[in-house]
Amino acid sequence: MMKAVVKSKKGVGFVELLDVPKPQPGPNEVLVEVRAAGICGTDIHIYHDEFTYSPPVVLGHEFCGIVADVGKDVEAWKPGDRVTSETAGYVCGRCRYCRTGRYNLCPKRLGLGYHLNGAFARYIVVPRPEILHRLPDNVDFISGALCEPSAVATHGVIELTDISGGDFVAVLGEGPLGLLALQVAKSAGAETVAVTGIIEARLEMARNLGADFTINAKQEDPVKAVMDLTEGYGADVVLECSGSPIAARQGLQMVRKAGSYTQLGLFGKPIEIDLDQIAYKELRATGVFSQRWSAWETALKLIASGKLLTKPLVTHIFPITEWKKGFDVMENKAGIKVVLTPVD
Amino acid sequence: MMKAVVKSKKGVGFVELLDVPKPQPGPNEVLVEVRAAGICGTDIHIYHDEFTYSPPVVLGHEFCGIVADVGKDVEAWKPGDRVTSETAGYVCGRCRYCRTGRYNLCPKRLGLGYHLNGAFARYIVVPRPEILHRLPDNVDFISGALCEPSAVATHGVIELTDISGGDFVAVLGEGPLGLLALQVAKSAGAETVAVTGIIEARLEMARNLGADFTINAKQEDPVKAVMDLTEGYGADVVLECSGSPIAARQGLQMVRKAGSYTQLGLFGKPIEIDLDQIAYKELRATGVFSQRWSAWETALKLIASGKLLTKPLVTHIFPITEWKKGFDVMENKAGIKVVLTPVD
Amino acid sequence: MMKAVVKSKKGVGFVELLDVPKPQPGPNEVLVEVRAAGICGTDIHIYHDEFTYSPPVVLGHEFCGIVADVGKDVEAWKPGDRVTSETAGYVCGRCRYCRTGRYNLCPKRLGLGYHLNGAFARYIVVPRPEILHRLPDNVDFISGALCEPSAVATHGVIELTDISGGDFVAVLGEGPLGLLALQVAKSAGAETVAVTGIIEARLEMARNLGADFTINAKQEDPVKAVMDLTEGYGADVVLECSGSPIAARQGLQMVRKAGSYTQLGLFGKPIEIDLDQIAYKELRATGVFSQRWSAWETALKLIASGKLLTKPLVTHIFPITEWKKGFDVMENKAGIKVVLTPVD
Amino acid sequence: MMKAVVKSKKGVGFVELLDVPKPQPGPNEVLVEVRAAGICGTDIHIYHDEFTYSPPVVLGHEFCGIVADVGKDVEAWKPGDRVTSETAGYVCGRCRYCRTGRYNLCPKRLGLGYHLNGAFARYIVVPRPEILHRLPDNVDFISGALCEPSAVATHGVIELTDISGGDFVAVLGEGPLGLLALQVAKSAGAETVAVTGIIEARLEMARNLGADFTINAKQEDPVKAVMDLTEGYGADVVLECSGSPIAARQGLQMVRKAGSYTQLGLFGKPIEIDLDQIAYKELRATGVFSQRWSAWETALKLIASGKLLTKPLVTHIFPITEWKKGFDVMENKAGIKVVLTPVD
Repeated sequence: MMKAVVKSKKGVGFVELLDVPKPQPGPNEVLVEVRAAGICGTDIHIYHDEFTYSPPVVLGHEFCGIVADVGKDVEAWKPGDRVTSETAGYVCGRCRYCRTGRYNLCPKRLGLGYHLNGAFARYIVVPRPEILHRLPDNVDFISGALCEPSAVATHGVIELTDISGGDFVAVLGEGPLGLLALQVAKSAGAETVAVTGIIEARLEMARNLGADFTINAKQEDPVKAVMDLTEGYGADVVLECSGSPIAARQGLQMVRKAGSYTQLGLFGKPIEIDLDQIAYKELRATGVFSQRWSAWETALKLIASGKLLTKPLVTHIFPITEWKKGFDVMENKAGIKVVLTPVD
Repeated sequence: MMKAVVKSKKGVGFVELLDVPKPQPGPNEVLVEVRAAGICGTDIHIYHDEFTYSPPVVLGHEFCGIVADVGKDVEAWKPGDRVTSETAGYVCGRCRYCRTGRYNLCPKRLGLGYHLNGAFARYIVVPRPEILHRLPDNVDFISGALCEPSAVATHGVIELTDISGGDFVAVLGEGPLGLLALQVAKSAGAETVAVTGIIEARLEMARNLGADFTINAKQEDPVKAVMDLTEGYGADVVLECSGSPIAARQGLQMVRKAGSYTQLGLFGKPIEIDLDQIAYKELRATGVFSQRWSAWETALKLIASGKLLTKPLVTHIFPITEWKKGFDVMENKAGIKVVLTPVD
Repeated sequence: MMKAVVKSKKGVGFVELLDVPKPQPGPNEVLVEVRAAGICGTDIHIYHDEFTYSPPVVLGHEFCGIVADVGKDVEAWKPGDRVTSETAGYVCGRCRYCRTGRYNLCPKRLGLGYHLNGAFARYIVVPRPEILHRLPDNVDFISGALCEPSAVATHGVIELTDISGGDFVAVLGEGPLGLLALQVAKSAGAETVAVTGIIEARLEMARNLGADFTINAKQEDPVKAVMDLTEGYGADVVLECSGSPIAARQGLQMVRKAGSYTQLGLFGKPIEIDLDQIAYKELRATGVFSQRWSAWETALKLIASGKLLTKPLVTHIFPITEWKKGFDVMENKAGIKVVLTPVD
Repeated sequence: MMKAVVKSKKGVGFVELLDVPKPQPGPNEVLVEVRAAGICGTDIHIYHDEFTYSPPVVLGHEFCGIVADVGKDVEAWKPGDRVTSETAGYVCGRCRYCRTGRYNLCPKRLGLGYHLNGAFARYIVVPRPEILHRLPDNVDFISGALCEPSAVATHGVIELTDISGGDFVAVLGEGPLGLLALQVAKSAGAETVAVTGIIEARLEMARNLGADFTINAKQEDPVKAVMDLTEGYGADVVLECSGSPIAARQGLQMVRKAGSYTQLGLFGKPIEIDLDQIAYKELRATGVFSQRWSAWETALKLIASGKLLTKPLVTHIFPITEWKKGFDVMENKAGIKVVLTPVD
């Protein structure tokens, strides 16, 4: 048996620390001993019953650890390997998305920590060896717990958005995703990055992580600020990382004509926006959902080379027995990122 | 003096048939004798004071005719040339958009028929010879009156949207823009095109112009219909040509993951949509405003080769003295496209 | 036992009709009864020892047929299904190309008919069920034998080359690949297609299949001809389907500045070209190798809808006992495409 | 009168220091007092009669200086402005390239320093005010003399090549263009850059300017070295800056499948290459000629921000009276870049 943070049934709440059986890997599965697992905004949404999930399920999908055991058909991994994992625990393999490398869009995709047991526990079974990635030697486990959101940011900023050398990029939102997107944008050639937000400590973190400008939306109008910084043109690229309708509307206003707007945050409901801007400005808008293999490879390169720092975002580390404290910190924005560690 | 349909001052209405001086071309300007000019939805918006314009101004920006006179510095054109014209009567020439061939996005652009005198008259001065295009010999003036919206459709569908051979394209809206977009999509390699709308006569026209399927939104759910036609994936490309918020919401629902959504219609106000779809589906969304030179060249090729038929859309032709009848037909959707012809 | 056309060992020649055991499908394999199989230029190259292969091996990689038996783990197919097949009999599944849907580029790829037994026989084992595609109901087996080269053309012309509505496309080479590329280009929105070649009967076929112009390189200079047809600009797109160094040099000369040049043919040896043209003209050049899943899906749509006709290319049908006749026809260019049918 | 380095007539040599009249600007022209002008490889080619030019013509097309006088119609500039200039002294304004912002490809383009008088003199008339760019305040004139080749590198590396965050880039050639391309690639998101060459001092400069690896082609096989650095895949991007046929062949060998190969150097004659690689690998190949407005804007941003250092490349500065010394240094590769300064 092992302790695990479990969403035990549908509804608001129903997250609890339970003793569950230590899982065993099937023939083509890998058992990973979790060393660290980040709390994601999605975990909070599941707590509040605002996301899809299949209870009872162990939560936690941002993690790294050490291979503990492998099924008999597994050739690529062996016990002792330091690994981190994608979240696509099941995909159909037959649809057009699976066929073309975009399996994150597979209609039958099942996610670790949502539909399949996750990483807020000592052990997790990774049901597809191919979603594991080697954790670079110079990346410690706390840093490694943030590989998954780093891959999301990399997928959104490098693979789906076309940042060009010299570009002015506005990152909307100073949360974990915004702070990762900022760094990925810089590494992808953004000449200037401005981060908007409302929490001064996070904006300071943004500056420390390379933001050329930060804009406190409580103190000044982000749209005007960006226009002033860009000779009135507007930002070449807007990365909306907050999931705030206000920010989305500001983003559409502050992006320049023929510019790019990428949605990385989620709103959770329909919102009112001036969609005419997409036509008047001939914008290119897109958004990101989860990640794919290539984004992981690139994210891990950026983390290993120090271009993408994840550890500074980790403001709190708790054992999973104190998961509630961690959820509260995330929900209250009392820190930036919380990492949980397993207990016996 | 000549008769002209003039928006005489700001406010709802204030469109009237007036006697105005016959214009004279400046040194680098071209005087065109108008042969036919289409009524655009924008003209209706200007009537209702719902668009930008600089009164008093002669309306009409979709037209063709014959060069009547040229200024002394004009080398490219001579009297007798059959021509049609872009609408960008003035652009700054210095901004990043002018520098890169995207002058339709110039912040200082002034449009013929909005800010500068338009084509609902016997004569129009085209202030920049470079926006004139030769009307192909085999294109009559009634067909030629629709070159401008054809160039809009071409710009949106061919230049800004990436239609790939084999694609399923959903065109939302069975008005003039939708019927042009349908044909451009077909000519650009769309394998299957479905057109949605609510007016049966227009849907029949769509079928005559090449639509593989038409969907009457009063009789069936367009989203379900498109899903059924695409093995549940959704349309590869959605071309939203209606400017209806309902259609926009349906469009985001019916487009497949990683598909393209292009806004050709305008809403005129903020609308409520489920923007999360752009992220969940990793859509590529864009929109179109006016046109640029290359779109005109391509549109004229398509018209000349018969791939893009404009004449079938012209259900009514009135002399400009009966402009009000024409505006009413357009507003009431009693026809598809109305063309006005000048009178002495 | 069954009769099969086998390359029995390394060297020039060594192709013979042999009696070989009827193959049995493994647990996750599919046994297909071949109905028709095309002779490819590659088969001729293997005859002449000019291509990679692993003897002894049954030749033939362009085929269609009926599922005869399936291994116990196969769920997607059942006996009686009409199918055609990709050629990637083995891929590693782990490299960056396999991970991103570009498994045709897998360094460990093994091809049916080269490294693994092919289709010049009554039966073939398809070792990966996922490379089978359903042959559309309205496509007969002779037409279906050309699905594979159709997918090559589709991959090259639609997926790797950016043909835009209104484009002038020059197809260099009037062989099977050129005649397929011509049709795919037309279906992808090419406004005008000119085909160059030296065999008049094939050029006539090109005209019948939709070529707007054909240019007999024995009678006129293809470069001049294309320049004359394009107001001196040159072709927007050149599709080099001949594998002739002369054609490649002409292609680089006749493509317009900022145009596209795609290599579909192979030369088999280094050639001398004016590579400066790629810089002076800022060309976009690319080439195609084999195909991927999405190209097959699109090719089958085009074949089913009649936009891509394959049967007219089949000038000769022989039983495999007369394989040598077929090879001779292909080599001597006495016809266009030869299809072999199995015998007991 | 003023002293100028003039190519006085067709043939090898015929470059001399002459006294020529000080030029006067026409109504829409700008007179610039040259402060520094770089010697380009093209100047050497003109010396040797290996490039297009219209003698007699003052050489020199890489320069910066101060506006000395403006014609009566010039509004954008005034005496005292610090400027640098594009080389497109004349373009037609009507062709498809001029219309779409790619005027560097205009068939009628005339270049400063080739067809129109250049900058190896105290004064130069810039015949189109729109090709002038403001020299950033923090960029001195010696650094500013290299804006033009910086814009070439920026155009080729950022605008025409798609470098993605995390990419491995191989720069072939350690000359001025290679050292600029290296820095632009880094600023555009290249994770790792390897520079090949044969002159150790230049390779050391490459390392100082940010190259992660340098490969001395005299000491090791560049293809093997790049393969070893990339797990056998090959480089994601090859930037061929040397104009050496050997390097071009190596570049096609060392680029990975589906990778990008960009030609920045010129060969001056047909060369023998294995063009099949473009097909086998499905490469994307392109090349660069001169530059366009947007490349200048980006290059100037990169220079102003210090991401692109030009001054370290300037190993020699001579007055124009010693132009021959400068040409010799360039030709003998005794330095990297030579800048000439005017004399009275």
